[in-house]
Amino acid sequence: MAERLAIIGGDAGGMSAAATARRRVGPDDLDIVAFERGSYTSYAACGLPYFVAGVVPEADRLVARSPEKFRAQGIDARTGHEVVAIDLDRRALRVRVIDSGDETWEPFDQLLVATGATPVRPPLPGVDADGVHGIQTITDAIAVRDRIDGGANRAVVVGGGYIGLEMAEAMVLRGLKVSLVEMAEQPMSTLDPDVGALVADALRGIGVDLHLGTSVEGFETDASGHLSAVATTAGDVPADVVVLGLGVRPNSALAAQAGLAIGVTGGIVTSRTMSTSAEGVWAAGDCVETYHRVSRCPVSVALGTHANKQGRVVGVNATGGYLTFPGVIGTAITKVCEYEVGRTGLTEREAASAGFSSAAATVEGSTRAHYYPDAAPITVKVVAERGTGRLLGAQIVGREGAAKRIDVMAAAIWNEMTAEELSQLDLGYAPPFSPVWDPVLIAARRAAGASAGSAG
Amino acid sequence: MAERLAIIGGDAGGMSAAATARRRVGPDDLDIVAFERGSYTSYAACGLPYFVAGVVPEADRLVARSPEKFRAQGIDARTGHEVVAIDLDRRALRVRVIDSGDETWEPFDQLLVATGATPVRPPLPGVDADGVHGIQTITDAIAVRDRIDGGANRAVVVGGGYIGLEMAEAMVLRGLKVSLVEMAEQPMSTLDPDVGALVADALRGIGVDLHLGTSVEGFETDASGHLSAVATTAGDVPADVVVLGLGVRPNSALAAQAGLAIGVTGGIVTSRTMSTSAEGVWAAGDCVETYHRVSRCPVSVALGTHANKQGRVVGVNATGGYLTFPGVIGTAITKVCEYEVGRTGLTEREAASAGFSSAAATVEGSTRAHYYPDAAPITVKVVAERGTGRLLGAQIVGREGAAKRIDVMAAAIWNEMTAEELSQLDLGYAPPFSPVWDPVLIAARRAAGASAGSAG
Repeated sequence: MAERLAIIGGDAGGMSAAATARRRVGPDDLDIVAFERGSYTSYAACGLPYFVAGVVPEADRLVARSPEKFRAQGIDARTGHEVVAIDLDRRALRVRVIDSGDETWEPFDQLLVATGATPVRPPLPGVDADGVHGIQTITDAIAVRDRIDGGANRAVVVGGGYIGLEMAEAMVLRGLKVSLVEMAEQPMSTLDPDVGALVADALRGIGVDLHLGTSVEGFETDASGHLSAVATTAGDVPADVVVLGLGVRPNSALAAQAGLAIGVTGGIVTSRTMSTSAEGVWAAGDCVETYHRVSRCPVSVALGTHANKQGRVVGVNATGGYLTFPGVIGTAITKVCEYEVGRTGLTEREAASAGFSSAAATVEGSTRAHYYPDAAPITVKVVAERGTGRLLGAQIVGREGAAKRIDVMAAAIWNEMTAEELSQLDLGYAPPFSPVWDPVLIAARRAAGASAGSAG
Repeated sequence: MAERLAIIGGDAGGMSAAATARRRVGPDDLDIVAFERGSYTSYAACGLPYFVAGVVPEADRLVARSPEKFRAQGIDARTGHEVVAIDLDRRALRVRVIDSGDETWEPFDQLLVATGATPVRPPLPGVDADGVHGIQTITDAIAVRDRIDGGANRAVVVGGGYIGLEMAEAMVLRGLKVSLVEMAEQPMSTLDPDVGALVADALRGIGVDLHLGTSVEGFETDASGHLSAVATTAGDVPADVVVLGLGVRPNSALAAQAGLAIGVTGGIVTSRTMSTSAEGVWAAGDCVETYHRVSRCPVSVALGTHANKQGRVVGVNATGGYLTFPGVIGTAITKVCEYEVGRTGLTEREAASAGFSSAAATVEGSTRAHYYPDAAPITVKVVAERGTGRLLGAQIVGREGAAKRIDVMAAAIWNEMTAEELSQLDLGYAPPFSPVWDPVLIAARRAAGASAGSAG
């Protein structure tokens, strides 16, 4: 009889594991069943703001692979099925069919927990009012889009992280008057404040009304029960629609109840092979805790790229192979209208928290040769360890061509290069693509000087 | 009395050394004199095609810093001065003032040879005919532009390397009918033939008439002595203007006459500090031979980025500091209308020449998430060492956003990562910038499989 791999969660982590495992082992030797409580498998959560913006016209385009396609590959993908308990002793899952409410026990030999993450929803007065939306599922995005189509014209975004910025852009593109409320003094707390200030300028540049250093106290409704305003420490901000962008928390409760080890970040603890504390049980995606290669601390980072890689690792290891997930360095990029933002490694603040003594350099440059048309401004900040000059982090804000420059810095940080070494790297140069000294190289050179008393 | 640093050549290598040295040591302690036989200092040779295209309206915009500006910084920059001999025993240069023909001896304590490179001009019948142009100096570019302004409408580019392609683009943009004659079966001999074939398609796509596998036999003129056609092994190709793009050779004759060691590539031999075989004599830029970090072979690569970095190294070392040039890995990018091309490390052919046994993988992907507008096609080829999976090289052809992806692969190759390691790298992801699995990562994963029998 075939062994059975059960998967809880039908999104990136779960389904990339399923697909990888199926490529390696046929249905005669391995049963693969995936339980997804929602209606979609493998949808692109990162694409939701672009669906709201109308840039992506149909929600179906965000679905990388439908349950039918998985089934055609010999993967039993069951949407509308919620796993309510894991019994490790019986090697079985308690599964509820959402439509009928029926529950059954489903046996497994190996298990993958890929339960994702849940958006933070603060316990504030009125948070459940009609018009206050999280933005995690296609259903969420359809609801926001319907509200805009229905005539909402004043939007408030709560939280100035990636999803907040992308939703602000989306609603600006749809013609709404958009306000953004952020507790910190600058948006994007994953950037240092000096770089965050550039993002604030960019947001103002596209017409977003910023309420920084401001906390939300509640959501107000009118007599008919409709959302009317967001109450903040700086007064009321009128709103027809609210989008919460306050980050996410790993969905690890089910795993915790089953007795799997949970880490300090709230994510499921995994080894480098993505095995959990229980024999034959794996975890992948937004629900896990992973390793930050620079800080050496556990982190939970909800990002489709990590989920896909971790899922592939599980798919290999659950079928007799050996592959490891090497950890993350916190690379992230985003675009807000014509502005691009990228970061990798540690900010100055994060470096200090991790115990590093660091120095930083920030340079303003150009994305192309100065004489080439459409050369766009770009600001690059590099953080390096004092004394050794080792690269710790980088942040970029600029226009077209700026953000993806973070990748070369990610590769440099990943490899523990020094800032001076990065400044000597043989990067591609041609006038349409960069100045002869790319701003990345200049920032690295300056950071080498700042951190170590450079030679030149 | 101040020490004297004399520099032969007023372009990237020479003048970046001068500027770096001057930042470190004032005029009281160091005299800096630079002799340039042309009329410009520090001009952007890489920008010449864009001047010809009209994209850069004025030649002056290509000059990064004029002689006057250098003099204002305490650097005695003398244009129109040709160094005709180096006397190492007397520690003096024989300098001819080009306008007057006067010659004098100029003493030095330290010397930097930064004499650049000269375009290859094949000894073919008619090569000196009016209308046959090299493209290295601003004067060359003005001559070609004048010829186009004067009504030339049939152009032939000889040689399908970077400068050839960029000049073909420039003349297409100016509305000329452009033919390209290339001896090899594909343009871009720095790419493998399968990738070169994609470039050939791109060139045909912008209307360039390709004559591949074709050698030039001479240049024909009409009765009045005007250029009329290029004679090739495949017949005559009519031409009003010809641009030679046959590569360059290091200008090392002066150094050789003075007894400096010259390497197998024809470039001046330098140590990692850019010192030559003679005490107190440095060399930098297109005239030197440098070290290829992957092949471990000496190479001569004429590129402004290397020249600038090497010049900085000399500026530091000539003033009592210590800095080294770590070598190159052959990174290069270019743009031909909407097509972008990049390469780094070794091609399959180069890997074989360097003694590697390699395997390669080529993937076709998209520059953005599949559902995001303007996702453009991109082809990525990765070459890895058999057995170890070590990355040896990468090549990219695609549209907007394709070429600069070569940088992250350059950083990976520089750090001797394996293809599998690259496939796990934490790169920036957001739908406007890449699919969740960037084509770079997929190509690396496939190359890992091809080279080592990958796990997944």
